Amino acid sequence: MRFTSETSSDGVREQLFTLDEIPGETSSETPGKTPGGIPGVLWTPVGVGGTRPLILIGHGGGRHKRAPDIVALARRFVAECGFAVVAADVPAHGDRPEDAEYDRIARENQARVEAGEELAPLIAGFQALVARRTVPEWRAVLDAVQELDHVGAGPVGYWGVSLGCGLGVPFVAAEPRVRAAVLGLGGASASAGSAARITVPVEFLLQWDDERVPRAQGLALFDALASAEKTLHANPGRHGELPEFELDSSVRFFARHLR
Amino acid sequence: MRFTSETSSDGVREQLFTLDEIPGETSSETPGKTPGGIPGVLWTPVGVGGTRPLILIGHGGGRHKRAPDIVALARRFVAECGFAVVAADVPAHGDRPEDAEYDRIARENQARVEAGEELAPLIAGFQALVARRTVPEWRAVLDAVQELDHVGAGPVGYWGVSLGCGLGVPFVAAEPRVRAAVLGLGGASASAGSAARITVPVEFLLQWDDERVPRAQGLALFDALASAEKTLHANPGRHGELPEFELDSSVRFFARHLR
Repeated sequence: MRFTSETSSDGVREQLFTLDEIPGETSSETPGKTPGGIPGVLWTPVGVGGTRPLILIGHGGGRHKRAPDIVALARRFVAECGFAVVAADVPAHGDRPEDAEYDRIARENQARVEAGEELAPLIAGFQALVARRTVPEWRAVLDAVQELDHVGAGPVGYWGVSLGCGLGVPFVAAEPRVRAAVLGLGGASASAGSAARITVPVEFLLQWDDERVPRAQGLALFDALASAEKTLHANPGRHGELPEFELDSSVRFFARHLR
Repeated sequence: MRFTSETSSDGVREQLFTLDEIPGETSSETPGKTPGGIPGVLWTPVGVGGTRPLILIGHGGGRHKRAPDIVALARRFVAECGFAVVAADVPAHGDRPEDAEYDRIARENQARVEAGEELAPLIAGFQALVARRTVPEWRAVLDAVQELDHVGAGPVGYWGVSLGCGLGVPFVAAEPRVRAAVLGLGGASASAGSAARITVPVEFLLQWDDERVPRAQGLALFDALASAEKTLHANPGRHGELPEFELDSSVRFFARHLR
């Protein structure tokens, strides 16, 4: 894990890093390494050491680890709860190189949608493919970050909607360190199988007028979660119009479950 | 409005009252009066005068104005927000006399369910009948309570689930003083028409495994609300198993909208 920059403002320290070694992951050129490494960002409270809860945020499709909404939410978790927060670029996003296979699939899917195929199953298939890389990558990010003195091996939360849900559901299902998760803007066709293996508390966000995820698909994904405590928050509006007060609710949710 | 008793504890003053005159309501015996009056209870902060937000709570079926869950919630609104809270017994509930017409309908409905009819439409019809009395009664309660120096004519909220939703939806639709409402555990067959006239912010509670209100009915009632801001909170569990953290959410919801 190499730190490449560090800044602080308003009590929040932001460290950019690159993680080179991904256990179990191989690229064709360099076994055990991911090409260019995984670029990530870690936010922690300024000047406070010791173990603390850690939240991993999964960014949305076409976005990246430092998208403005991710940064704003991460800073709230640090400032209001004293948590550490980490985010990493998903393959072919942010500072990571393009991926010829993903590009090919995206082009094929585009052609299939234009030929009249449904979008949701295509998104689902693509997210499942990407998750096969992000699940081990994110586990490696947790391993590395939890070795730092100012993070430590505390309870872990996961926050991710849209692509961050499609990748987050298999991650949360696979990773026993995750004790609570905010998920949403995703559908059952992508994730119902993994969702049935999730048993930690989940707050699930659904946009009632989502133009990308059919309402029944979102309700079915919530239904598929095996968690004894799960709560669905549905609000009017399109895929990108999550109301601001749901972020307040995310902060309270993690404060309740990770502290 | 006659006050019949007053107690205080932990900074919360509780006054029992009877409201005799209901404008526009007539009983067969005494025009302009409701037999025995409407028994109510008012909670306010001890020793603090002046206008404040007021929340009217509608109790559940077979319950009454001082059911333990109602009292606990009312005391939270007073202690945590400084609000006034009022509740009144629904006809044929609590300290109100039995009603021969309601009894007859209840017996008929019981027989129809035993003969294989669906329960939900029967509940819907009954609640619509009761709402024809409670809407003017609750408006009269607001009139009377808002004339008191320690309540005043501030913004009004409504909280009611189950029967409190069936009666609350037509009340909130009819009463412009209500600026925000928590509703839930009710279905569209009872209330969709009135719901379409509600435009204030609503937090809507749904129990995912409700044995009395089919899930699709609850979702359809949320869908029918015309409010630009409405948020559905769905949780696993049966009709009576609303999780405690939803009451925290109700407190925050009214603090945000009425203060």
